[in-house]
Amino acid sequence: MSVTASSRTGVLLDRDALHPSLSDPVLESIGFLNEVMGRHPDAVSFAPGAPHPDPYAALDTTRYLERFVTHAAAAAGRTRESATRLLYEYGPAQGIINDIVAEALRRDQGIDVDPESLVVTVGAQEAMFLTLRALITGPHDLLAVADPCFVGITSAAALLGTEVVPIPEDHGGLDVGALAQACRAARRTGRRVRACYVAPDYANPSGTRMERARREQLLTLAEAEDFLVIEDNAYGFTAAPGTELPALKALDSAQRVVHVGTFAKVCFPGARVGYAVADQRVRTRSGVVLLAAELARLKTAVTVNTSPISQALIAGMFLEHGGSLAGPIRTRSALYRRNLAHLLRALDRESAEDPPQGVEWNRPDGGFFVLMRLPVPVDTALLEVAAAEYGVLWTPMAPFHLGGGGTHTLRLSCSYLDPDGIDEGARRLMAFLRERARTDSGTFVPPEGARG
Amino acid sequence: MSVTASSRTGVLLDRDALHPSLSDPVLESIGFLNEVMGRHPDAVSFAPGAPHPDPYAALDTTRYLERFVTHAAAAAGRTRESATRLLYEYGPAQGIINDIVAEALRRDQGIDVDPESLVVTVGAQEAMFLTLRALITGPHDLLAVADPCFVGITSAAALLGTEVVPIPEDHGGLDVGALAQACRAARRTGRRVRACYVAPDYANPSGTRMERARREQLLTLAEAEDFLVIEDNAYGFTAAPGTELPALKALDSAQRVVHVGTFAKVCFPGARVGYAVADQRVRTRSGVVLLAAELARLKTAVTVNTSPISQALIAGMFLEHGGSLAGPIRTRSALYRRNLAHLLRALDRESAEDPPQGVEWNRPDGGFFVLMRLPVPVDTALLEVAAAEYGVLWTPMAPFHLGGGGTHTLRLSCSYLDPDGIDEGARRLMAFLRERARTDSGTFVPPEGARG
Repeated sequence: MSVTASSRTGVLLDRDALHPSLSDPVLESIGFLNEVMGRHPDAVSFAPGAPHPDPYAALDTTRYLERFVTHAAAAAGRTRESATRLLYEYGPAQGIINDIVAEALRRDQGIDVDPESLVVTVGAQEAMFLTLRALITGPHDLLAVADPCFVGITSAAALLGTEVVPIPEDHGGLDVGALAQACRAARRTGRRVRACYVAPDYANPSGTRMERARREQLLTLAEAEDFLVIEDNAYGFTAAPGTELPALKALDSAQRVVHVGTFAKVCFPGARVGYAVADQRVRTRSGVVLLAAELARLKTAVTVNTSPISQALIAGMFLEHGGSLAGPIRTRSALYRRNLAHLLRALDRESAEDPPQGVEWNRPDGGFFVLMRLPVPVDTALLEVAAAEYGVLWTPMAPFHLGGGGTHTLRLSCSYLDPDGIDEGARRLMAFLRERARTDSGTFVPPEGARG
Repeated sequence: MSVTASSRTGVLLDRDALHPSLSDPVLESIGFLNEVMGRHPDAVSFAPGAPHPDPYAALDTTRYLERFVTHAAAAAGRTRESATRLLYEYGPAQGIINDIVAEALRRDQGIDVDPESLVVTVGAQEAMFLTLRALITGPHDLLAVADPCFVGITSAAALLGTEVVPIPEDHGGLDVGALAQACRAARRTGRRVRACYVAPDYANPSGTRMERARREQLLTLAEAEDFLVIEDNAYGFTAAPGTELPALKALDSAQRVVHVGTFAKVCFPGARVGYAVADQRVRTRSGVVLLAAELARLKTAVTVNTSPISQALIAGMFLEHGGSLAGPIRTRSALYRRNLAHLLRALDRESAEDPPQGVEWNRPDGGFFVLMRLPVPVDTALLEVAAAEYGVLWTPMAPFHLGGGGTHTLRLSCSYLDPDGIDEGARRLMAFLRERARTDSGTFVPPEGARG
């Protein structure tokens, strides 16, 4: 997408004179990653956390639209023609499938809210963006985030000029004590932690899962310190059956949680449909409304409304499965756990005889990601070598750490690969690591206290 | 969507403690308008500028998706299966139909740009939003807008905390001299007009069309004062064949124009597909890129990407019509001009025998809107009477005037109505106006120098 200066005339802008969020180093590093992937199309890439394409073959857009139209006609006593029109018109900013989504949330996730507590958005990204915009009123309002953090929320914060406070996490999830300290520290300077973003289930990029007790501590702190929790639930469905933990929103008796979700992983990304559950009451001069309605008002200034055709595709898929996504969740969840187990076995197998010294990785039981610690700095130079000489790609973790750290860690995603690709990638990765261990024998030893 | 306070427990937020854009009086007035419409479902409404539903009957989503898949498979040497996958995956933030849109822009509007100068967005609204975000870096950057102004751009500015400078317009369009003065005035206070929003063809809500000479003056001023023009082209297609004026972007030899467009009116709103043409060069540390690519980077923080299914529906419709929208433009343009002419005839007919004193309206030759001046204040109280007692609705203009004015003007939209509805609405409207003229005989005279 780069152009030569001589091929064009006219205005020449300077990126430094555009909005500062365009110079965000995290966006730069993602751009670099995409660029490297583009230059090495034959590399096995453990970089993108994309959904697996296998379930796409069974999708039937014509059938889903038909399902939705039949439902809409019956539910509202409309003619077929009038129900079909819903697909083509603008429709309300808050959404047209809120009742169907609310029903599925109740059945599939134990989140029991009225349809009017929902706003349907262009993916979870817009839901996060609108929630941030509603809650953050000025420079005195801070957003706390789990560190390392999903780039979607930090880039939205950058676009809105919102200051982010990184909160460390450990094996049990977000360090609630550190968050309490951050709240107190903000108050001492006349500011406040207005919201805390957390993905409690197999977070991207860390893969961390928040313990049950920790979830309750977070909600208690939110009430005590008067902030809202923005819960991102993208990966909860990958838990093994019987091991699921309740969503924060399912435990949220005090309405402290705005729950954002996506149908990209359980249905398909191309619909670009997500949602926010925002059942908090808002007092206005003319009465009390729900925060979801306020988010919908903000949405009119961003995207007006979510494509009703996209909404109908998702709702039609729900209806096709009897109003619950339990079926798709079961098959997709099994697919991702198969891949994860396959990757862990492949890493074990490929390193069994001649393990690269000082390399360690975690063994998550869900999610899309494995974290691997190396005894050398994991940076773009190392990635370039891995891509060019060994044909394997992965994601350096440092850009996702706002509070430093992650300098020696890489992320392996296996979500969209097939077993053969995972095997080949693991073989290349271990060859690369062994070779680097020999080349860098002086430095290739675990650094003191290095922590991903 | 209002809830009773007693039906809920938990957190109670205050709208005044949420982002100030939620208290924007324009949004409040639109909310009120929707609420009045909801309470009077049998009223003839001249309020919404929605597209006419007639063309929806000929749409065929299955066929359009099929068209796109066939094209994508052939164009890139993909298998059908691989081309179908494009619909379900995320895809690039900048879009997947840019080549098809660029071709149509060249053929239908004389706008000749490379596909990489385009970013495909969730409607024109997101295109405006992203453009504003890229250009406005802080409180010293001002956005000039034609006054009265489309609420979509002012609400986006409010969401981003951008200060808006209203520039008056006359019959020939934006007052370029007043804009020059505003630029100089900003500079004197250490600020700058960074961009100017204008809809040169039958603007919403004023219906004004910018003269050819005025277009060139605006571009000359943009170059002299170093600002960019954000051109919104929603209604240009309604010009009678042979009377079209060139888009600002088609005259833009110095790349001063970011052109935003929508397919809501020429195709259908439910796809939620729009675009920005942003061929300005941007210098970065590692080379020169196009502004369109920068807008796409910002888009990753807002909606990630535009639904590829929505994009494919629009592209498939283009392909169905041979790569140009000339056909749909012709039929839809004729439909809207028929409605406009019908409304003007109906207003003449219904007022011929007993004209309500002091009431005047304009006679536009394109667009969706007629403006009517009344000799009494046009406010929500008057709207309530018209709705409740006469079963007719319209839009008060004052909320769209940032610089005062519009207090005695209402907007009539006839875009989505049928001739019978227009006739009935005109009958009710004139009955209402005659009765008010009798009731308010003391005040129902044209105020001195009243100007819509």
